[in-house]
Amino acid sequence: MPFVTVQIGKGHSIEKKRKLVKAVTDALVSALGTKPEWITVHIDEFEREDWAVGGILHYDKHNGRHEETGR
Amino acid sequence: MPFVTVQIGKGHSIEKKRKLVKAVTDALVSALGTKPEWITVHIDEFEREDWAVGGILHYDKHNGRHEETGR
Amino acid sequence: MPFVTVQIGKGHSIEKKRKLVKAVTDALVSALGTKPEWITVHIDEFEREDWAVGGILHYDKHNGRHEETGR
Amino acid sequence: MPFVTVQIGKGHSIEKKRKLVKAVTDALVSALGTKPEWITVHIDEFEREDWAVGGILHYDKHNGRHEETGR
Amino acid sequence: MPFVTVQIGKGHSIEKKRKLVKAVTDALVSALGTKPEWITVHIDEFEREDWAVGGILHYDKHNGRHEETGR
Amino acid sequence: MPFVTVQIGKGHSIEKKRKLVKAVTDALVSALGTKPEWITVHIDEFEREDWAVGGILHYDKHNGRHEETGR
Repeated sequence: MPFVTVQIGKGHSIEKKRKLVKAVTDALVSALGTKPEWITVHIDEFEREDWAVGGILHYDKHNGRHEETGR
Repeated sequence: MPFVTVQIGKGHSIEKKRKLVKAVTDALVSALGTKPEWITVHIDEFEREDWAVGGILHYDKHNGRHEETGR
Repeated sequence: MPFVTVQIGKGHSIEKKRKLVKAVTDALVSALGTKPEWITVHIDEFEREDWAVGGILHYDKHNGRHEETGR
Repeated sequence: MPFVTVQIGKGHSIEKKRKLVKAVTDALVSALGTKPEWITVHIDEFEREDWAVGGILHYDKHNGRHEETGR
Repeated sequence: MPFVTVQIGKGHSIEKKRKLVKAVTDALVSALGTKPEWITVHIDEFEREDWAVGGILHYDKHNGRHEETGR
Repeated sequence: MPFVTVQIGKGHSIEKKRKLVKAVTDALVSALGTKPEWITVHIDEFEREDWAVGGILHYDKHNGRHEETGR
């Protein structure tokens, strides 16, 4: 009964989510030999103002430094 | 200090949530003998496009096959 | 597809866990009308040294003050 | 690679969140000696109708009894 | 900064875990276009006596009915 | 009712945990103005073989490359 939670930044299209849950499910099937119907995947999206690395909100990192942030 | 997280599909009325947290709290009191005031219940709702079983989003399952989905 | 996580202190017998998962499942069935086979319950036990309220570990609270702790 | 999840009530300004992730990151640095860039903090906000203590939703507690609720 | 939690039954070899984290990371890279070094995977194993579907512990299901359980 | 989960590598002494929960609790008090007795902190330790960044288990990273790993 594997249960997978994927925490990612907000703003992915339903098409990307469709690919994501399929790819993650396939990954577990191939690595563990689990049947697909036993596998649940939960996508948990976060806002940029709710996530920080090194004590700096992604919101600030993004606006201030124009870096990629790996949503 | 039991802490309970209930992950369910979006769209339940406040009346249902009221019943849910009461019933879950009572369940812990009766099974474990904990005092109710020690028990926290957190309801964490998910969108249909953020949940998949067998690699298929509930959103697609619902729209395509008209099955019940156990929200 | 409700998924319930119950975080409780370590040291419950399998008999208590059996009662607990049954009672929690019944609580969801009665409050939400979900079928039992759709409901997963996960018990996640913690050690007393891994849990704190008010900045004080349960381990210390228990040893120092002889209070009940609501495992 | 510490990963910290802070579950709090909804409604904090970005300025408060900025302070929060900084203060929590500093707390881990001082207590564990971890480098700040290894520390991730995730803020997970909940609605008052999705949180209960003693079987009573915060939503009801707040409206009915005019108590502070420790958002 | 995707963060993935994989909850599975206890008892997988380190070799299987090695395959699992590689496969899950590749799945996110291919579905979302994220760089691998941004992706964290956490394996969270549970005991059979700490997991239930339909109100029945996996421990009991396994011992009583000799079914496969989809560890 | 803030609830904080701190996921860190296994092997911290109880003295370090004592400092950690105190420091994290103080951080929330200073950033949010919450009363300490409303704040719960849960330490969730993981094994090196259960955590990966970039598709590589910390267990392998540590053994193969002798790098620091930010437990």
